[in-house]
Amino acid sequence: MSNLKHKLLDEVKDDLRDIETALQENLGPHIDVVRQVASHILFSGGKRLRPLLLVLSSRICGYGDDYVKTFSIVFEYLHAATLLHDDLIDSATLRRGKPVAHSVWGNSIAVLVGDFLLARSLSIGTETGYLKIIKIIADVTENMSQGEIQQLMRKGNPDLSEAEYMEIIQRKTAMLIQGTCRVGAVMADASPEEEEALSTYGLNLGIAFQIADDLLDYTADTKSLGKELGADLREGKLTLPVICSMKAAAPEHRISMENIIKNENFSVQDFETLVEMLKKYGGLVYAEQVAAKHIENAKQALSVFGDSKTKDILLHIADYALNRKE
Amino acid sequence: MSNLKHKLLDEVKDDLRDIETALQENLGPHIDVVRQVASHILFSGGKRLRPLLLVLSSRICGYGDDYVKTFSIVFEYLHAATLLHDDLIDSATLRRGKPVAHSVWGNSIAVLVGDFLLARSLSIGTETGYLKIIKIIADVTENMSQGEIQQLMRKGNPDLSEAEYMEIIQRKTAMLIQGTCRVGAVMADASPEEEEALSTYGLNLGIAFQIADDLLDYTADTKSLGKELGADLREGKLTLPVICSMKAAAPEHRISMENIIKNENFSVQDFETLVEMLKKYGGLVYAEQVAAKHIENAKQALSVFGDSKTKDILLHIADYALNRKE
Repeated sequence: MSNLKHKLLDEVKDDLRDIETALQENLGPHIDVVRQVASHILFSGGKRLRPLLLVLSSRICGYGDDYVKTFSIVFEYLHAATLLHDDLIDSATLRRGKPVAHSVWGNSIAVLVGDFLLARSLSIGTETGYLKIIKIIADVTENMSQGEIQQLMRKGNPDLSEAEYMEIIQRKTAMLIQGTCRVGAVMADASPEEEEALSTYGLNLGIAFQIADDLLDYTADTKSLGKELGADLREGKLTLPVICSMKAAAPEHRISMENIIKNENFSVQDFETLVEMLKKYGGLVYAEQVAAKHIENAKQALSVFGDSKTKDILLHIADYALNRKE
Repeated sequence: MSNLKHKLLDEVKDDLRDIETALQENLGPHIDVVRQVASHILFSGGKRLRPLLLVLSSRICGYGDDYVKTFSIVFEYLHAATLLHDDLIDSATLRRGKPVAHSVWGNSIAVLVGDFLLARSLSIGTETGYLKIIKIIADVTENMSQGEIQQLMRKGNPDLSEAEYMEIIQRKTAMLIQGTCRVGAVMADASPEEEEALSTYGLNLGIAFQIADDLLDYTADTKSLGKELGADLREGKLTLPVICSMKAAAPEHRISMENIIKNENFSVQDFETLVEMLKKYGGLVYAEQVAAKHIENAKQALSVFGDSKTKDILLHIADYALNRKE
């Protein structure tokens, strides 16, 4: 574990403990299998980034009620719901080192428990009584499904542009993180400037987070990744390092990259060849730079807030998103 | 087409026309495939029962704004979302005589467009600005997914009790119809008595509607049904006629019924044998009686309203639910 991660976890350990409790308690007395499947996806080492960001966003705007911790789990449920459906759609086998839910309980249960978690997060959302918050949740949910559809339709297409990639990751990942930060501000009755600042922070953090996640597929080792190396490629997902390198590559190299991309059953050697190309044509470095730029934007957005311990933590989270190795 | 249906359609033709327009317009400028899949499920001869009930419920409480027609489609989108996921879960092949969406576009798209329609209905729901309405939508959505999960978990189990069956159909079908009627009342700022009356009407209508639908699986001919005869049984869904007859059957007949139920590949002759048993042991008649009792409750609930054309239509819809042949 890196020093940064260690320090960060220490700073938020009380919040994380309360979030864990709320996640458990709000599953409610439901049908056994719902509890099992929801627990499988919810309690398998998730980072709780989304609820944590909501709590911190609320706190930086001066809100100190514990209720925010209970409510924050809405965004973890929403996240878990999309993971259940996405793993199914991607035919993934492992998540965080564990077999995916649909391989344990079957596709139907994965679809339905995903639907349930979506509905549950909506129900908890309505309990706040804030119409604005519900609108944010609805908007995020709509965008997430559209982002996933866009991604699916462009699957395996070597012509995916950087602009399309950015649109997809904004919708499927960044808007949820933006939403959780914004909702934190709304719950604190923050000023429009503060709400806007946290919204900008969340969006940029989310973009950087997804780019860094996509990078790990080419740079991490399988064990720390908790899923197959090259899984994105196998699923036909073209990410920024590939898109950038394909554009820069000499024609003959572009053709050999295309052949690897289009071959669902590429070999370990094919994969290594591709990673060489990503290095040669600067795709890995470029993706890191784009992520770093967004982290810079995220941190910059927080300048409307005075110095505080909470602000430091939000800055640390931004640094962590960029440097994480797992 | 029966006289009742013909008369009913004539009474509501203007409302249905406006609902069709709103269904089209609210799909919005989305990704092509979303529009295609959503249109496939939405514009394939659905009865528009749910939006129509909302409009009529609102009108009987004195609300005359055209906005209610625009808004009413929330419940059709919600319904379509569950159909997309349910057809996938049931491995259905036909709906309303057309190939199901997942067989045309694949499972992933069916899951994601279902998610999108769910999110879209939530978004439109928030536009009303009524927190109470959003709570109803959230509650209905949560119950629907739980009802489907319950049904799935009890699939093929010959010990399913009548009480469990009733709980499942309330959750998966009746609460949506109850919700649409209640929301109509809420939009009209109806009195608590009126809201309660329409809620009771909707719940009972929904229960009867599902029982009648389940009955058709044993009594209709394939052509008018628009799906395979015996589809419920093939999917392992035990419905009221079967549950009742199994309970009443002599031990040897119960065993032969169980064998047919447990055999996913039952023959036409097996199916005919089962229908004979349903007749012999009164399951078909009993299910009709239970449906009729709920229709009676539904109609009775409307007694708080004075006579009006709208009330007549709501009463006709109740009669139609009981007597429909397709």
